[in-house]
Amino acid sequence: MSTEAFPKGAQRKKCHLSKYKSLPPWELETFKNVKDRFEDIMLLSDRKCNTKIFHRNWEVKELSVHDRAILVEAELHLVIDVLENFGDPSLSEQLVRPLEILRHIREDLKSCTRHQPDDHRRSRRLTSWLQKFHKAKKMETPGCLEASVILNLFRLLNNDLKCAAYMEFCT
Amino acid sequence: MSTEAFPKGAQRKKCHLSKYKSLPPWELETFKNVKDRFEDIMLLSDRKCNTKIFHRNWEVKELSVHDRAILVEAELHLVIDVLENFGDPSLSEQLVRPLEILRHIREDLKSCTRHQPDDHRRSRRLTSWLQKFHKAKKMETPGCLEASVILNLFRLLNNDLKCAAYMEFCT
Repeated sequence: MSTEAFPKGAQRKKCHLSKYKSLPPWELETFKNVKDRFEDIMLLSDRKCNTKIFHRNWEVKELSVHDRAILVEAELHLVIDVLENFGDPSLSEQLVRPLEILRHIREDLKSCTRHQPDDHRRSRRLTSWLQKFHKAKKMETPGCLEASVILNLFRLLNNDLKCAAYMEFCT
Repeated sequence: MSTEAFPKGAQRKKCHLSKYKSLPPWELETFKNVKDRFEDIMLLSDRKCNTKIFHRNWEVKELSVHDRAILVEAELHLVIDVLENFGDPSLSEQLVRPLEILRHIREDLKSCTRHQPDDHRRSRRLTSWLQKFHKAKKMETPGCLEASVILNLFRLLNNDLKCAAYMEFCT
């Protein structure tokens, strides 16, 4: 499935997310390995957070199709940034493939978020969430950010990204 | 399958662990729900540990069949104790069924550990691990114990208990 939801603008690269309706099990396995390994070491460092960074009291499907892509792209920015600068070098090797996949997804999302449909107005709900999210990124410790990002990996991939990939069919 | 590995002693209740070779998916799901819910709140409290409580640098299958049951029983004691006194009441309802299952397993394990085979001598490896384990239980904070126990639930059920259930066939 390919969609041309946002074909206008200088770059006419299409918005292709349908492949993320479900990620291959062997790719998900690489994320599972990172999570397992992290759980093994996470309690030895201070991970306390002041807020639940990824928390929201609404569901992705309640956003417009365009807003969903913006949301997932913002989440991915933080995830990639944190994993690229991960404190414990014992995870470096296991992070290689997950980071490749995440960067690939982010590129694909950019093609969707780059061009705003003429009639698009970002929802207040998303705007408010993004403000809190960006503030939390700055306020929380690296230990908290690492734990938040890794504990939220599967919600991001199996829920948020999947819903963005299903476009108007995520209901 | 039923085994009579340790039939001697006053109580001749048989040692039945074969049903734990694999737990029903719907029962494992109740543990998964607890873990997911806990991950959602765990970072808001201090969970730092001084040691990896459940860590060992050997595998369960390297223990004798009798020692495996002792190991899993000791782990279960801590798990049940911590979950019964869990700090966050929002998890109470979700913990009901997992705790029932864990208490049931512990009862079954007692039938296996109660009677020591005539030729059994507890390995130095297990003895040393149990000493460290009991010390850690006393030294660590409730926050650390809760996180350690919940993050280790699936290793306990899918690895340690399963190996004990396979008896001499866990190799």
